[in-house]
Amino acid sequence: MCVGLDTDIARLPDGFSKDYRGIIDFNREIVNATKDYAVAYKLNTAFYEQLGKDGWKALEKTRDLLPSDVLSIADAKRGDIGNTSKMYAKAFFETLNFDAVTVAPYMGIDSVEPFLEFNNKYTIVLGLTSNKGSQNFQTNPLYKPSLYKTVLHTVKGWGSIDNLMFVVGATKADSLKEIREIIPDHFLLIPGVGAQGGNATEVCENGKNSNGGLLINSSRGIIYASSEKNFADVARQKAKEIALETKPHTQHL
Amino acid sequence: MCVGLDTDIARLPDGFSKDYRGIIDFNREIVNATKDYAVAYKLNTAFYEQLGKDGWKALEKTRDLLPSDVLSIADAKRGDIGNTSKMYAKAFFETLNFDAVTVAPYMGIDSVEPFLEFNNKYTIVLGLTSNKGSQNFQTNPLYKPSLYKTVLHTVKGWGSIDNLMFVVGATKADSLKEIREIIPDHFLLIPGVGAQGGNATEVCENGKNSNGGLLINSSRGIIYASSEKNFADVARQKAKEIALETKPHTQHL
Repeated sequence: MCVGLDTDIARLPDGFSKDYRGIIDFNREIVNATKDYAVAYKLNTAFYEQLGKDGWKALEKTRDLLPSDVLSIADAKRGDIGNTSKMYAKAFFETLNFDAVTVAPYMGIDSVEPFLEFNNKYTIVLGLTSNKGSQNFQTNPLYKPSLYKTVLHTVKGWGSIDNLMFVVGATKADSLKEIREIIPDHFLLIPGVGAQGGNATEVCENGKNSNGGLLINSSRGIIYASSEKNFADVARQKAKEIALETKPHTQHL
Repeated sequence: MCVGLDTDIARLPDGFSKDYRGIIDFNREIVNATKDYAVAYKLNTAFYEQLGKDGWKALEKTRDLLPSDVLSIADAKRGDIGNTSKMYAKAFFETLNFDAVTVAPYMGIDSVEPFLEFNNKYTIVLGLTSNKGSQNFQTNPLYKPSLYKTVLHTVKGWGSIDNLMFVVGATKADSLKEIREIIPDHFLLIPGVGAQGGNATEVCENGKNSNGGLLINSSRGIIYASSEKNFADVARQKAKEIALETKPHTQHL
C-alpha cells in the first residue's frame, strides 16, 4: 500500500501554518502515523509546485523524512527530449534521491530511456490512467489496439521488471486482466482507490500476479480522512484498513 | 523568435558561479543581449529542477527579469488528472506568472482544461515533437490517422486561437502543410531549429499562415553560440540572424 502525500495547503487541519512549513509538519505526522502499513509514499509534485520555490523546499524536506525502508515515488509525470529528460532524471533520482518517478510516454523512447539508465531506480510509465480524459487518446475507439496497449507493448521492451513499472488507474479494474496479458510480470502503480471511486478488492482480484505485483495508492482517502485534531489517528486507521484489504496481493516489492 | 533559456550549469562560461546564482546572472546577460530580437523567452523547467529548490529559485528569478513586452513560456510539459493539473496551472500562471505553459496530451481533456481556464494565458499542447521518439506513438504507422493528428483535431476543440497553441518540432517541416490543414489558425511553437537540425526557412515556408502564426524557438544555438567572454555579443548576433530569417513569417503574436 502506497500513501499519496498530495498535501494541499488549503486543506491543512487547524494548527498548521498555512505555508510550506505547515506542509512539512503535516506530512511528518502523516508519515509517522502510517509507516507501519505503508510500503511506499508518493509525492505528487503539482501540490508542491503551486507554492513555487517554497513548495520545492517542502518536497525535498518531505522526501528526507520518509523511512529508509519504503519506496519513495515522485509522481511528476515528466518527459522531454533525451538531453532534457536526463535532467529530469537527475533532478528526481539524484538531487532529490527518490527511488521512483512517474513518466509520460507521449514523446517516446528517448524521453523514457534517460530515466531507465539509473541503477536501482524505478521508472513508472503512464499506461491507462484513472481519469475521464483517458478516453480521448488512451482508449480512443478509432485505434485498434488501443493506444494504451501499444504503449504497454512498446515500453516494456525498453526496460525490465527491475527498473520499470506502469501506472494503471483503479477505476479501470475491468481492464486489468487484459493488461496482465501484455505485462504479466511488471509491478503496477494503481492510483484512484477511494476518492476517485476505484475498488481495491476488485483491482487486486483482476490485477495481481504470482508475486503480488500491485502497489495500491490512496491519497485523499487517507491524508484527509479527518480534518479534526485526530486526523493522524484516523489516517493510521484508514491506512491499516487499505493495507489489510490489499496486502495479500501486493507483497514482494 | 523565441530564445530558449535552457541554461545548464555545466555549460556556463568562465566567470559565473557554478550554482543557481550563476544561472540567474548568465540568463540576465543573455536576455539583455537578445531582447531587441526576441518576442518570447522559453524556460525549460528540467534545466532548473536538476538543482532542486535552488533551481526553482533561479526559475522564479529569471522569470522576473524578463521584459514585460515578451511572451514568457514555461516549457514544463505537465499534465495530470483534473484537480492536479489545476495545481500545475496555478504554479505556472499564478505563482510564477508565466504567460504560457507547455502541456502533454496523453491524459486527455481534464488534464488540459484546467490550464485553458486561466484568462490571458496560453496553453501550448504537444502535437508533433522534434525527437526520434515521436515515431513510437505520435506517428506510429499502426494508427491512421496518426496519433498526433488526432491530438490536434481533438484538442483544438477544447480552446480557441486566443488561449491555445501547439508544439510542432522544426525537424518535421515536411509535416507542417498537413498540420496547417488541421489547425490553420493556431500559433505553433517550433523548437528544434539549430542544434536539433531543423531548418528555419523551410519551417516558415511550410508552416506560416496568413497572420504568421509561428514562434520559432532556438535554445542552444543562441545561448551557447560562444563559450568565450564575448558569449553575449555572439548570442545577440545569432538572435538577430534567426529573427531576420523568420520575422516576415512570425509577426502578429
